[in-house]
Amino acid sequence: MKALDKYNQRVDAVNSLVCVGLDSDISKLPDWYRKQSLPQLDFNREIIKKTADHVSAFKFNMAFYEERGADGLNELALSIEYLRDLHPDILTICDAKRSDIGNTSRAYARAIFDEIGFDAITLSPYLGRDALQPFLDYEDKACIILCRTSNHGSGEFQSLEIDSKPLWQIVAERVADEWNTNNNCMLVVGATYPEEMAKIRHVTGDLTLLVPGIGAQGGDIEAVMKAGLNSHRAGLIINSSRGIIFSDDPALSAQQLRDEINRFHV
Amino acid sequence: MKALDKYNQRVDAVNSLVCVGLDSDISKLPDWYRKQSLPQLDFNREIIKKTADHVSAFKFNMAFYEERGADGLNELALSIEYLRDLHPDILTICDAKRSDIGNTSRAYARAIFDEIGFDAITLSPYLGRDALQPFLDYEDKACIILCRTSNHGSGEFQSLEIDSKPLWQIVAERVADEWNTNNNCMLVVGATYPEEMAKIRHVTGDLTLLVPGIGAQGGDIEAVMKAGLNSHRAGLIINSSRGIIFSDDPALSAQQLRDEINRFHV
Repeated sequence: MKALDKYNQRVDAVNSLVCVGLDSDISKLPDWYRKQSLPQLDFNREIIKKTADHVSAFKFNMAFYEERGADGLNELALSIEYLRDLHPDILTICDAKRSDIGNTSRAYARAIFDEIGFDAITLSPYLGRDALQPFLDYEDKACIILCRTSNHGSGEFQSLEIDSKPLWQIVAERVADEWNTNNNCMLVVGATYPEEMAKIRHVTGDLTLLVPGIGAQGGDIEAVMKAGLNSHRAGLIINSSRGIIFSDDPALSAQQLRDEINRFHV
Repeated sequence: MKALDKYNQRVDAVNSLVCVGLDSDISKLPDWYRKQSLPQLDFNREIIKKTADHVSAFKFNMAFYEERGADGLNELALSIEYLRDLHPDILTICDAKRSDIGNTSRAYARAIFDEIGFDAITLSPYLGRDALQPFLDYEDKACIILCRTSNHGSGEFQSLEIDSKPLWQIVAERVADEWNTNNNCMLVVGATYPEEMAKIRHVTGDLTLLVPGIGAQGGDIEAVMKAGLNSHRAGLIINSSRGIIFSDDPALSAQQLRDEINRFHV
């Protein structure tokens, strides 16, 4: 099944656009976990168990696993295995923002899609399409291209204008119109830029957007929903990481985020 | 010591601008290595032993280690340890092309600089300076920012013109003029674009350029040397990966590349 269909079916099944970001930073884990032999795995299992009923995707930020070297990568792979066994219908996103030339991209694609078995990966567009083609060739996976990122300085290059059109818009149009021949592309658009999100929705049709920046980064859910829903009243993957996984009650936080989103999802 | 000084001292000591790219793709290793318990480590040790006298830097492409999961990361770390013990004066570059928002970049920086102990890392500029600040804050390390990459389609976004200036030039100027406050920035400029390299040299002063694209990708050494040398007749890190590590005689190939470069290095 295509990653896009997997996500949409799950959204319908649990009525949720929520993605939980498993940014399981070892230095922020509760003491109890840090004393275990597989701290990130144990923590992820617990968060998955508590939140899965309310979510349609989990996003794993590679940095927090690579930081622990071989141990981290091992626990990442075990976490994915655990999640897939328990909830094979939930989308798994590798947040790695990769970009490299062809033969290197092939190695990354094998690592992320074939070895670990993720459904989707985030990619940087700076090198151009030919560099990312090995990822785009995986028809059933999803390639989520950085477009307008959530950080406050993202405009430094992304907002430069080429013939009155900002670079982020050119990336959005290029991905929607030319790169998406396998219907497996999505875009990263930060919740912190709802005006740009509305424009991106306008120029990309029904393309699915991965939306970071809710919560700790200050993005507003109502603004995102007004700007980002597509013609099927879907097309958004709304991520929250720290706001859920490090909350006192992750299950409640995930449920509340889902409900808050659904207030504007009519 | 600053990574930049380390590199320049080594260049003077061995009269070489050569960087060997340890793209130790497991599927391309000779059979003998593939049967060992630590195939990438054994292969890297052999290449390092054979080529080190002729080179000033080694570049490790993360993709080919991540592809093997925890085993690959472990052998990468052991390779760096081996290299550092044997030749502490050779620059080590992590070719990872990372870019992420602040708290994630901090985790990557810890992983690459503190845990594994690399001297330098390649980074993508698309997210802007604030995202890369955690890397830039390491004064003694080198941040090598993608500018004009060697792949044939790199112009798709990099050559878009903003007020008659291509994006790659804006990136080059921004890095040289604003990001380089710690004198720890370099740029990636492909050997396949010597005209652009000459312009980048012109607008960035003496900034050091990491140059991939020699050999398998078709870059020409004479053109690179004419376009890229700085006012100290240095400022280039010229990388060859497959052309050296998979040649019948890696020592000879490294020596020949060094000598070929030095023909134009007067």
